[in-house]
Amino acid sequence: MHLVIDGHGCDPELLSDTEVVREFLDKYPDAISMTKIMTPHVQMYNGPVPEDWGVSGFVIIAESHISVHTFPDRGYLNVDVFSCKEFDSALAEAEIKSYFGIQSIDSRVIDRGLEHLDPVDAVEVVSGEREAVQQRL
Amino acid sequence: MHLVIDGHGCDPELLSDTEVVREFLDKYPDAISMTKIMTPHVQMYNGPVPEDWGVSGFVIIAESHISVHTFPDRGYLNVDVFSCKEFDSALAEAEIKSYFGIQSIDSRVIDRGLEHLDPVDAVEVVSGEREAVQQRL
Repeated sequence: MHLVIDGHGCDPELLSDTEVVREFLDKYPDAISMTKIMTPHVQMYNGPVPEDWGVSGFVIIAESHISVHTFPDRGYLNVDVFSCKEFDSALAEAEIKSYFGIQSIDSRVIDRGLEHLDPVDAVEVVSGEREAVQQRL
Repeated sequence: MHLVIDGHGCDPELLSDTEVVREFLDKYPDAISMTKIMTPHVQMYNGPVPEDWGVSGFVIIAESHISVHTFPDRGYLNVDVFSCKEFDSALAEAEIKSYFGIQSIDSRVIDRGLEHLDPVDAVEVVSGEREAVQQRL
């Protein structure tokens, strides 16, 4: 299950604060019974478009991840909560909305991950194709 | 634009190789004109369910990210290419399919990111709600 959240009209102060993002990535996995397998990575971004600056962060949890990208000058953020286990997406949405001071939210739930997987035999691949892409890379 | 790929019947050897994942995360942003803002983070995962082991990796690009989670014993992987700029999602899907030796693919494209954003005035937030969630955290 992958919860995709785009928040509008958010509190710019919260979105500017690397510690707010770090705390979310550090503590939210536990709150929804997921297992972090790294310390969250959080960093500021300043690029060629000044008003697109913001905070980006992610944490890998067992077999999946949580990520955050904020745009304080636009009052906008993106949050992804992707878990291989089911979780209460409505509750997560409400909590994320409150935590980041989101006024208006677009959210989507994508069915993916191990719980949507039928057993598949691994297949031996003949892959000249892959080499072609590697050359492009 | 966020391209969500779930691949089945993949080559287990490719999915087992941290360097295959690292090379993808390191080089693919350039191939689709995105700007990395960190060195890719890649790690192995071994958890309580032995056959769920795999490689997880992440790279933050300007304002968004690319992530990979592999499950070699299941021939399964998840790739997300989330960019604030438009890119050729059909080409990206074809290249990712070849690169990881994917036999069968589920892909979705989600319209999100700055190019889908109307100007929104940042709103001052009165947020007792947030404190309640912080307490839960």
